[in-house]
Amino acid sequence: MKRILYDLAGADAKFRFSPYCWRIKMALAHKNLPYETVAWRFTDKEAIAFSGQGMVPVLVDGANVVADSQKIAEYLEVNYPNEASLFGDPPSRALTQFIRAWAEQVLHPAIARVVLPDIFFHRLHENDKAYFRDTRERAWGMRIEDFRAGRAEYVAAMEAALAPLRTTLGLQNFIAGSSPSYADHIVFGALQWARMASSTALFKEDDRIVDWMKAVLSTYGL
Amino acid sequence: MKRILYDLAGADAKFRFSPYCWRIKMALAHKNLPYETVAWRFTDKEAIAFSGQGMVPVLVDGANVVADSQKIAEYLEVNYPNEASLFGDPPSRALTQFIRAWAEQVLHPAIARVVLPDIFFHRLHENDKAYFRDTRERAWGMRIEDFRAGRAEYVAAMEAALAPLRTTLGLQNFIAGSSPSYADHIVFGALQWARMASSTALFKEDDRIVDWMKAVLSTYGL
Repeated sequence: MKRILYDLAGADAKFRFSPYCWRIKMALAHKNLPYETVAWRFTDKEAIAFSGQGMVPVLVDGANVVADSQKIAEYLEVNYPNEASLFGDPPSRALTQFIRAWAEQVLHPAIARVVLPDIFFHRLHENDKAYFRDTRERAWGMRIEDFRAGRAEYVAAMEAALAPLRTTLGLQNFIAGSSPSYADHIVFGALQWARMASSTALFKEDDRIVDWMKAVLSTYGL
Repeated sequence: MKRILYDLAGADAKFRFSPYCWRIKMALAHKNLPYETVAWRFTDKEAIAFSGQGMVPVLVDGANVVADSQKIAEYLEVNYPNEASLFGDPPSRALTQFIRAWAEQVLHPAIARVVLPDIFFHRLHENDKAYFRDTRERAWGMRIEDFRAGRAEYVAAMEAALAPLRTTLGLQNFIAGSSPSYADHIVFGALQWARMASSTALFKEDDRIVDWMKAVLSTYGL
């Protein structure tokens, strides 16, 4: 059976930077499910029209098509019950919702302020630039160029937003404790996006967050 | 066996407002462990000198003395294994650490900016005022009076900080899912402190957060 993930790409088709796609790639690794990716760009709406919507990640799992990262995670958990659980148990699943809300409402915007110009000027395919500029400038009420002036302040704000993560990783190896679960995947996705897209190094190589990211990857032999 | 909790009080000994004490009161309720409280004020260092430190909560559980809310929660979990678990299982316990870090590093400071003057001017015992002013002004680098000018801005920032909680409570009844656990107690403690101490109503009575707080209390017949 073929398993295909439509995965957001930059101008370089190998540059895959979406935090939502990354969390699903980690979830697939967690469940030890092989898959192929298809590079997808913001404006390739037709390529995923079969999914009934226009955003990635889209997972094609044999005859099943699932869009939306949270729906994909739930789908994988329900349909692959014999593989390692993404959530652990009902309370862990519920607690993961809080971490997801924090990641999407606090961490993602904090990272976006830093990396939007890097993505726009250095990474996007020419075909995607108008779409990206239009959607992002409308969402933020700001020109992409104007994010550059605030970079130092935004990096500091991102660092401040990471305080709860740093504290947690000072107490235990993973957000989920002694081994990673979907809560780790969610936050890993955000930071993978940040590190890949940023034009400057956001963390030192001996940073606790970098250590944790390497440990997440090495858990899955990545 | 006597179980006594030393609980932070205002000028009115019945005014108990510490978020750390509240989380332990909820944890004791969760485990259905009866206890009495002793009103304690910031400067009553001698009254808890037996605990080897100078802050509340302090739990005296028969012959055992435990200080520090996290240590008390762990103590209750280990020593009362037949009562309802505060954490559920190891992953839930680990995920709860993240929520604790968020509560203490993001939510508590956001609430403190709003309620510090209310506590100082309206709630504290006269004996505690010098101590409170000294410790808080040193920690914040600001005069307590100066928090008043920023109140509207601080209330808005507190509301923004609550976004992940609101989202979570839109998906499920409790942070821990279908019933509350220690993650709920931690955040409940913060908001109980906020609501009790604030001189203005911070939430409408039909606010989702108020509904959730009532549901936490009613779970324990409180």
